[in-house]
Amino acid sequence: MANGYCIGVDLGGTNIKAGLLDAEANVKCSFSVPAEVDRGAERVIANIAGAARRAITKGGVEHGEVVGVGIGSPGPLSHRKGLVINPGNLPCLKDTPLRDIIAERTGIRTTLENDANAAAWGEFWAGAGKGVSDLVMFTLGTGVGGGVISEGRLLRGHFENGAELGHILANPGGRRCSCGQLGCVEAYSSAYFLARHAEELIAASRPSSLKARVDAGETLMAEHVVEAAKAGDDLAREVWDAACYYLSVAIVVMQHVTNPQRVVLAGGMIAAGDFLLEPIRRYSRELAWELMDDRPEIRFATLGNDAGFIGAAGCAWEAHRTGDW
Amino acid sequence: MANGYCIGVDLGGTNIKAGLLDAEANVKCSFSVPAEVDRGAERVIANIAGAARRAITKGGVEHGEVVGVGIGSPGPLSHRKGLVINPGNLPCLKDTPLRDIIAERTGIRTTLENDANAAAWGEFWAGAGKGVSDLVMFTLGTGVGGGVISEGRLLRGHFENGAELGHILANPGGRRCSCGQLGCVEAYSSAYFLARHAEELIAASRPSSLKARVDAGETLMAEHVVEAAKAGDDLAREVWDAACYYLSVAIVVMQHVTNPQRVVLAGGMIAAGDFLLEPIRRYSRELAWELMDDRPEIRFATLGNDAGFIGAAGCAWEAHRTGDW
Repeated sequence: MANGYCIGVDLGGTNIKAGLLDAEANVKCSFSVPAEVDRGAERVIANIAGAARRAITKGGVEHGEVVGVGIGSPGPLSHRKGLVINPGNLPCLKDTPLRDIIAERTGIRTTLENDANAAAWGEFWAGAGKGVSDLVMFTLGTGVGGGVISEGRLLRGHFENGAELGHILANPGGRRCSCGQLGCVEAYSSAYFLARHAEELIAASRPSSLKARVDAGETLMAEHVVEAAKAGDDLAREVWDAACYYLSVAIVVMQHVTNPQRVVLAGGMIAAGDFLLEPIRRYSRELAWELMDDRPEIRFATLGNDAGFIGAAGCAWEAHRTGDW
Repeated sequence: MANGYCIGVDLGGTNIKAGLLDAEANVKCSFSVPAEVDRGAERVIANIAGAARRAITKGGVEHGEVVGVGIGSPGPLSHRKGLVINPGNLPCLKDTPLRDIIAERTGIRTTLENDANAAAWGEFWAGAGKGVSDLVMFTLGTGVGGGVISEGRLLRGHFENGAELGHILANPGGRRCSCGQLGCVEAYSSAYFLARHAEELIAASRPSSLKARVDAGETLMAEHVVEAAKAGDDLAREVWDAACYYLSVAIVVMQHVTNPQRVVLAGGMIAAGDFLLEPIRRYSRELAWELMDDRPEIRFATLGNDAGFIGAAGCAWEAHRTGDW
């Protein structure tokens, strides 16, 4: 086991989550501070550097014991250049060389990774993907995020836009996704589009127990749809079924492309529990060939919202190990 | 540049193609011999070992100058174990530890790779993928094969069934593929299924200039369909359009998964030329997001049937470089 500690920082549109971890993923301390995105780039940068310093103090270690800082940030970004490019919910950081800035402010080597990749690395290193070298993670939140680990390495791709698994065309020509494509898995299986799909069917005069909420001017939430589907509402069941089916299509696609041992499902939607897991396991079995026995296990993530900072620290440990910051 | 030579062997159901290459992919010699699959495993093995010896003699080099043998074989196989598992057109080699047998017979370190991966490595090393580190290859032959190179490494996956790109679900629930799945890209874009698709529409009483062939008892070939489509036959155009469209879906899927710089199309179908390339470039542009400018270039392979033995030799060079046989 390598000596020392790494700091993991999960930069979000609202909060910065940070922690100090040793090489075996033991969390010495963790905490959350406001990102203060509306106060501009300098403030956000100061908050990140401050969080790194606080992790050292709170963790009770010496500055010299810290071998790296890992930052998980919303993309698009360039890990190779250490550059935040144009994150939708952090507009003030457009074109910011965040890696080098934080390395300078902290005096510690720093690596920058997109938040979906960092979270996947977290589950791989310390969560539901432990012990596995080929992993695929789908994060079912407002959108559908993705992360792929292949032979123990994050798959980034030439343009560093790899593992955008939410934009696998699961139903080509189907529902329009926020990215502009038609039929992305995100357009069915994300919390946002699950609710929009239900609203659209209701607007098309389909009967549903959810209609009362819509008529009352409420914006439907994914939780409402899940609840109604569990209660047997036909419209909600149809929408939920599409979410499970198209996610399963994407899982079978990944079976044939990166051929993982395990698929980890993360994000707010996994609160649905077996109501989500059971149909996904069933559909992904039905959709996949029987020619070879290479179906991945499908499991829920175990780190919850901590995957981001844990994975960011893990990315710093990996950079330390390989020398590739 | 590394000194010495590697032997590349492309094992097929009918012939063995072999050659001797230096570290810069210069082909010192190449030739083809019958595989004699119907004469059993020992004969096929003797033919492979014989081809390796002949490559040395014909290339005019010393045994001691040869640093490796690369064998590309039909799968499924295990590169890691050096094991041919159960190839459909080489049943006699079922469960044969071919890597170690050939290493022993030749006295040269040997690596075993599936033929689709070897061909992709060939194009990557010496053909249409030269100079690119993230590549995706689709081989449009009887079936649709695939190969993926990510950051300069072959993507194999946990079960070593990665890059089975022909079985990406491009139209879930659609035409049944030879693998049993519904809606694989292979079920639309392979030479075999292109012809079957046309036959099925003709059997469903759709008019077509191809009907005369079917009525005469001929089995339709992909070439017939292409020819008829070029001549303006509506049915042939529809089938060809589906082949191009679903291949483009798979290309866009790969854009979001492994995010390659270049997509290389290989195999017999590329004889169709611009009649194939133009619609694929158009559809893959139409289907992909405009959110980011990360569309891969799409090009035809340049090595033709030599990609297999060239790539197999390249795999041996790569094993020599990394020490990972």
